[in-house]
Amino acid sequence: MDKELMKRMGFANLDLMRKERTGAPEAIFCPGKKPEQIAEIMMELSADGDAIMATRATAADYEAVIKLVPDAVYHEEARIISVNGTEPEGPLVAVVTAGTADIPVAEEAAVVAELLGNEVSRIYDVGVAGIYRLFDRLPDILEAEVVIVVAGMEGALASVVGGLVEAPVIAVPTSIGYGANLEGISALLSMLNSCANGVGIVNIDNGYGAACLAHKITG
Amino acid sequence: MDKELMKRMGFANLDLMRKERTGAPEAIFCPGKKPEQIAEIMMELSADGDAIMATRATAADYEAVIKLVPDAVYHEEARIISVNGTEPEGPLVAVVTAGTADIPVAEEAAVVAELLGNEVSRIYDVGVAGIYRLFDRLPDILEAEVVIVVAGMEGALASVVGGLVEAPVIAVPTSIGYGANLEGISALLSMLNSCANGVGIVNIDNGYGAACLAHKITG
Amino acid sequence: MDKELMKRMGFANLDLMRKERTGAPEAIFCPGKKPEQIAEIMMELSADGDAIMATRATAADYEAVIKLVPDAVYHEEARIISVNGTEPEGPLVAVVTAGTADIPVAEEAAVVAELLGNEVSRIYDVGVAGIYRLFDRLPDILEAEVVIVVAGMEGALASVVGGLVEAPVIAVPTSIGYGANLEGISALLSMLNSCANGVGIVNIDNGYGAACLAHKITG
Amino acid sequence: MDKELMKRMGFANLDLMRKERTGAPEAIFCPGKKPEQIAEIMMELSADGDAIMATRATAADYEAVIKLVPDAVYHEEARIISVNGTEPEGPLVAVVTAGTADIPVAEEAAVVAELLGNEVSRIYDVGVAGIYRLFDRLPDILEAEVVIVVAGMEGALASVVGGLVEAPVIAVPTSIGYGANLEGISALLSMLNSCANGVGIVNIDNGYGAACLAHKITG
Amino acid sequence: MDKELMKRMGFANLDLMRKERTGAPEAIFCPGKKPEQIAEIMMELSADGDAIMATRATAADYEAVIKLVPDAVYHEEARIISVNGTEPEGPLVAVVTAGTADIPVAEEAAVVAELLGNEVSRIYDVGVAGIYRLFDRLPDILEAEVVIVVAGMEGALASVVGGLVEAPVIAVPTSIGYGANLEGISALLSMLNSCANGVGIVNIDNGYGAACLAHKITG
Amino acid sequence: MDKELMKRMGFANLDLMRKERTGAPEAIFCPGKKPEQIAEIMMELSADGDAIMATRATAADYEAVIKLVPDAVYHEEARIISVNGTEPEGPLVAVVTAGTADIPVAEEAAVVAELLGNEVSRIYDVGVAGIYRLFDRLPDILEAEVVIVVAGMEGALASVVGGLVEAPVIAVPTSIGYGANLEGISALLSMLNSCANGVGIVNIDNGYGAACLAHKITG
Amino acid sequence: MDKELMKRMGFANLDLMRKERTGAPEAIFCPGKKPEQIAEIMMELSADGDAIMATRATAADYEAVIKLVPDAVYHEEARIISVNGTEPEGPLVAVVTAGTADIPVAEEAAVVAELLGNEVSRIYDVGVAGIYRLFDRLPDILEAEVVIVVAGMEGALASVVGGLVEAPVIAVPTSIGYGANLEGISALLSMLNSCANGVGIVNIDNGYGAACLAHKITG
Amino acid sequence: MDKELMKRMGFANLDLMRKERTGAPEAIFCPGKKPEQIAEIMMELSADGDAIMATRATAADYEAVIKLVPDAVYHEEARIISVNGTEPEGPLVAVVTAGTADIPVAEEAAVVAELLGNEVSRIYDVGVAGIYRLFDRLPDILEAEVVIVVAGMEGALASVVGGLVEAPVIAVPTSIGYGANLEGISALLSMLNSCANGVGIVNIDNGYGAACLAHKITG
Repeated sequence: MDKELMKRMGFANLDLMRKERTGAPEAIFCPGKKPEQIAEIMMELSADGDAIMATRATAADYEAVIKLVPDAVYHEEARIISVNGTEPEGPLVAVVTAGTADIPVAEEAAVVAELLGNEVSRIYDVGVAGIYRLFDRLPDILEAEVVIVVAGMEGALASVVGGLVEAPVIAVPTSIGYGANLEGISALLSMLNSCANGVGIVNIDNGYGAACLAHKITG
Repeated sequence: MDKELMKRMGFANLDLMRKERTGAPEAIFCPGKKPEQIAEIMMELSADGDAIMATRATAADYEAVIKLVPDAVYHEEARIISVNGTEPEGPLVAVVTAGTADIPVAEEAAVVAELLGNEVSRIYDVGVAGIYRLFDRLPDILEAEVVIVVAGMEGALASVVGGLVEAPVIAVPTSIGYGANLEGISALLSMLNSCANGVGIVNIDNGYGAACLAHKITG
Repeated sequence: MDKELMKRMGFANLDLMRKERTGAPEAIFCPGKKPEQIAEIMMELSADGDAIMATRATAADYEAVIKLVPDAVYHEEARIISVNGTEPEGPLVAVVTAGTADIPVAEEAAVVAELLGNEVSRIYDVGVAGIYRLFDRLPDILEAEVVIVVAGMEGALASVVGGLVEAPVIAVPTSIGYGANLEGISALLSMLNSCANGVGIVNIDNGYGAACLAHKITG
Repeated sequence: MDKELMKRMGFANLDLMRKERTGAPEAIFCPGKKPEQIAEIMMELSADGDAIMATRATAADYEAVIKLVPDAVYHEEARIISVNGTEPEGPLVAVVTAGTADIPVAEEAAVVAELLGNEVSRIYDVGVAGIYRLFDRLPDILEAEVVIVVAGMEGALASVVGGLVEAPVIAVPTSIGYGANLEGISALLSMLNSCANGVGIVNIDNGYGAACLAHKITG
Repeated sequence: MDKELMKRMGFANLDLMRKERTGAPEAIFCPGKKPEQIAEIMMELSADGDAIMATRATAADYEAVIKLVPDAVYHEEARIISVNGTEPEGPLVAVVTAGTADIPVAEEAAVVAELLGNEVSRIYDVGVAGIYRLFDRLPDILEAEVVIVVAGMEGALASVVGGLVEAPVIAVPTSIGYGANLEGISALLSMLNSCANGVGIVNIDNGYGAACLAHKITG
Repeated sequence: MDKELMKRMGFANLDLMRKERTGAPEAIFCPGKKPEQIAEIMMELSADGDAIMATRATAADYEAVIKLVPDAVYHEEARIISVNGTEPEGPLVAVVTAGTADIPVAEEAAVVAELLGNEVSRIYDVGVAGIYRLFDRLPDILEAEVVIVVAGMEGALASVVGGLVEAPVIAVPTSIGYGANLEGISALLSMLNSCANGVGIVNIDNGYGAACLAHKITG
Repeated sequence: MDKELMKRMGFANLDLMRKERTGAPEAIFCPGKKPEQIAEIMMELSADGDAIMATRATAADYEAVIKLVPDAVYHEEARIISVNGTEPEGPLVAVVTAGTADIPVAEEAAVVAELLGNEVSRIYDVGVAGIYRLFDRLPDILEAEVVIVVAGMEGALASVVGGLVEAPVIAVPTSIGYGANLEGISALLSMLNSCANGVGIVNIDNGYGAACLAHKITG
Repeated sequence: MDKELMKRMGFANLDLMRKERTGAPEAIFCPGKKPEQIAEIMMELSADGDAIMATRATAADYEAVIKLVPDAVYHEEARIISVNGTEPEGPLVAVVTAGTADIPVAEEAAVVAELLGNEVSRIYDVGVAGIYRLFDRLPDILEAEVVIVVAGMEGALASVVGGLVEAPVIAVPTSIGYGANLEGISALLSMLNSCANGVGIVNIDNGYGAACLAHKITG
């Protein structure tokens, strides 16, 4: 077996060839890791000039990273630290949200897609309670090669969009809402049961995963 | 306390004044009752000429009833046995379904509303996967004083309709779907988390309850 | 499509015609939005003199709003910021609670109903553990055109009231309780399974939604 | 250790001293056991003349038992096979149901209590949707030393009765209902969250357990 | 209807006759109530000299109460504020815990039972992982007229005790544990499915309810 | 609005332009529909020569269809009735299963993809318990433009494949398994929490939806 | 990669080296497979003389197998078809059940362990409701090198045994019970939360898996 | 009964003979206990020189312990306080994690196993998203007599390892992840449904229990 495939760091085995194998570089999921660990991993992974990112990063994480990787960038609303991001110029991905409170998750998706090289159009706050808002922006949505729909509460927007566009739709349930939203389970179930076809679902609040899938689809 | 308020039958205490008190006559929920019990209760309750109904009634239930109450009517798709139904001439209730498979529940709602005296317009199979179907029928929906939305799977239709009409909306989740629909729980959660306001929810597959509420609202 | 239906604000698309379309003005759900965003949206929406409100608002939210909208009012127990509220003079809505701890949710319902123009009678702490308290206040409840029942724990009050009144009943489960209350799911399930007819349920702690539905019913 | 405490039968170890130890003889829960096994166990256990019973027994179970234990009795609605039942003459237990469909579970409780020696008053179909039915029978309920409340759907009757009587209340949720009743979980949660004090809950449809507890309390 | 049955206080309707009706005075569940409200209610209710208590009370709640009711007592581990407690001299109640961490809930039960007049024997930390500890204390348990078993994690102690004693057993699941304990749901389900008869269950962490039931049983 | 977009059939509104709008023709979900209804809808929809299909079709459904649409084909293992299927010649989709019991769902995906025009390679029974089976077939999987992974039980195959291929992965949880598989919920949760990126999930047993998404991606 | 590791059969890839790799031969889980498929796989796998088994096998499955593999044996209570079983002579495994209804799952464990070469002692119906039955058989249990505890309902037996023996304990929750047993989830949760250490849990009703683990431990 | 088996301390009954009976000394689960209680118990239990440990211990717990037991050691990452630990020299246990964030739970397992006398090899961050990392370390894993697999998110690593090794596998689900991980329930369900045989599961984040089981297996 090829030992160059990874590098042992004691607390982490870096997967240096992941980009070649799966089309996306390794990303660091920050919760549960110490800022110093995040910084060391980012330094190691960014050495080869690829796009590297850390998701769900706090300001404290960023402070640790910037000491070791001075050109790291912090996308605050998206909670992402990036290094060596690709210039977005590839196929267009639309990121659509139902409400204003869904924007942080949408930004995670949008920033990741841009770092991977996709162009992104942001179409926010077009939820079904005022469906005319959606139709107003439909022409923009129809231009995209992949549509990411980000919605909490009842998540109905994914079904409505899924019935209107030809492009594949990636649905991201969010934990926005209260009570019977069950911290996102309600939106997740809605999307899984969508009466529209051609919708793929990712985990609750997983903007990162949606962007990776969008990038692979357009890759 | 007024003993004439009810009549003891051993296995059931009939609530003869319920119509006066709550605006709707007592209805019999058939599952778990024997056909003969259903027949006896219907005979007793229908003696005063009010609208009486038995819901979730099987053909076998009807056979037992017809022996004791010859003018009982069986509404097959709605699974309702009725006696002395009111002529529908009151305020208009729209019953809207997302799909074809939701129709039995919708018929339960429609037939009950008619038996209570409401006029009913049936608008079936206008789910959000093909949202133009909904807009095509929107003028009909807008004429109603109450709108009952019946939907399974992700139940998104309730939110979309709730955002388009001024009338109160009653949402009935159905058990239609499979897998992560959790036998109707998914649609139920969707409706409870609707981003549209002015939506009241009833139990899964509870067309009867929706019609009672609609009747009270228009009463 | 009519572009005047909404106004694009970048992070939010305001639905200016919602009142005309659905009978209630847009309301702002504060959690997940920044105080400054709330303030900007309220300023924009209140410009036309309609009743505007923000729900689940914190004192910090109010501080931000008052800077941009000086005549905004903070209803502390109801956690609502309102502007241009209608004078309550319309049909009577009764807001009934099982316990003292349910009052914040009840106040949200009561204040919203008043802002929409309804008269409201508050009937608090009449839960079924001491059912004589309920019968004592029953005459007041019977005067209302719609009854909103707010209850946590086992939520039994909705069924008892539903069996006693002719008016439509809107049931609001609350998260009050502990352990097997499952943060309101127990009361929610109780209400959905109510043996009384003509009860419509809204989300856990959703006093706002109950008031909107009550207003539409009495509208 | 005392070997006479039990008798080994290969597929079952009979607990001959249970009555002395816990106040109730061993009962056989039939589902999952073969009719022949049930028959053999009943023959063995009934040899000493104590009250023995088999619960959830089918007609087929009874047919097997009667061959080996000719004086066994089948209580059809209660689904119980009994041998050597005590004459009911002990303290009064009230068994109260919300609806007609709850009667089989109530009968399980009533028959077991009678076989253990308690007198039983049956008060059926007094659910809260027509609460006057309950007040009509309240004097009978108040005479009992223990009250067993059997209710499905939202199970509200347990709280209402619990708030009205001084005797201990045993609540039995039933699986009666549909949809969000979750096969009895809704009623179970209701009862566990009862705002009335002094209510002890048993498993869904567990009339047998309720009777045993009632018997111990009155013992 | 008798208006003296309660006293209206605006935010609360006091149920002055509850002790006469149900055998236990009204108790105040503190969470969700303001310290000042608790203090006012306690002052009002304690005026007639009955045993009054407030459960889940914090030190801050007690500070507010003591200002208005100088002879109020704070039972810290039990989290109870009491006034006019009865001298414990009635029938013996055993309170048994599986572990050390269950003691606060057990103390709630023990203190309430004592305030209601029962004598209490505390038998703590005798869980089934070291079952000899239980047998060591069994003689003490067997002396009680009612046994309250308080256990978290898998809650097995309730079944073991239920199989060993003739007295009625009240099982209190606690939220002690982690992971798949689901904050007490696991222990609750265990107890509901107990293979021992004659066990009544109360809500998770509900020591108060267990004591009320024990008091009624021994009353 | 364009009325030619749909055709009203009373019990169903056919969405004739769906293929143009969303890239896939309308499909009929058979459960809950009568065989005769299915037959009538298929006849209507197939008149224009497009690929039409009915999923979860029983033999009885097919018998009804064949009478009205003589050239309908029944794919037995996939439970699909098709008319006018496209010749598969488009981009390659790999359908991979963990076990033998997952094949019916996989066949639904494979047959739908073929009817929509994709070439399909079937790679069955390569679950992770014997992971060498997967590596043996990896070269075949790597040739596909989209990989559909069908797995029940713990659904681990989706993560393993997701970490090995560059193509987008669509994961279909199946209801295969027992006990804690919760009828597919366990596999569904696994896939949603996949540590591999670029995986989109569809509903339990939803081979049809997976194929539609795959077709859109390759379209 | 070594192609001899498996044999492709179209619908199944046989893992011929599994015994060498993991210590147990491949077993066939019958539900979801056709009798003919089962028969073909057994014929193929048994050719090398190893112990092969099919679990959850019906009589119909056995009929198909016996045609192709004449020396196959059907263990009816255990629902297992075996070929080439090892003679049981290895380390002793105790299989302990709480009740009589748990025996089919226990037999699955016992027969599999025997087929893998372990000696098995069966200790059935010693549940905690009559804990003296357990102590009576404790000496037999203490002789085993691994103890498998099979219990439904509240599953308390696993904790009690886990606290009494030095050997590792494998706990098998069963679906025996009703209502709040949630088809085995209650027993499963109990066992996972066991206050005894050194207990490993397997899936509900998974006697096969327990035996495999026991065999590996003693191997 | 032998009174020397335990020592009564008022708030705790120490089980002095547990090591002789079950092979592992008593351990103290710290959450829910006061630091002073923990310190007193540790002092008492450590007097005989056995290995004693307290799990989930905070720094504050350690501060209290060190005052009474000066030679107590705090294993910070594992959150364990130990006294008189055995020198690790026994059979080898491999502790394997899927990710970096699983390390605290893995350290709990590793440190406990070492304190009980086992040698431990730590193999961290070899999750299935980059499966080559696992194969790189496979030789090390194959040397162990028991393998403990610690994984959150989808927990797939347990199945993959279970299919590759002959040793018994103990799977520890962790609460690492977000959204549909349901705080570890997703990984737990995955592991319970593992298609690999010979896997025993413990509670979420229960590294301590896994180590005890491993020690018993190798004992």
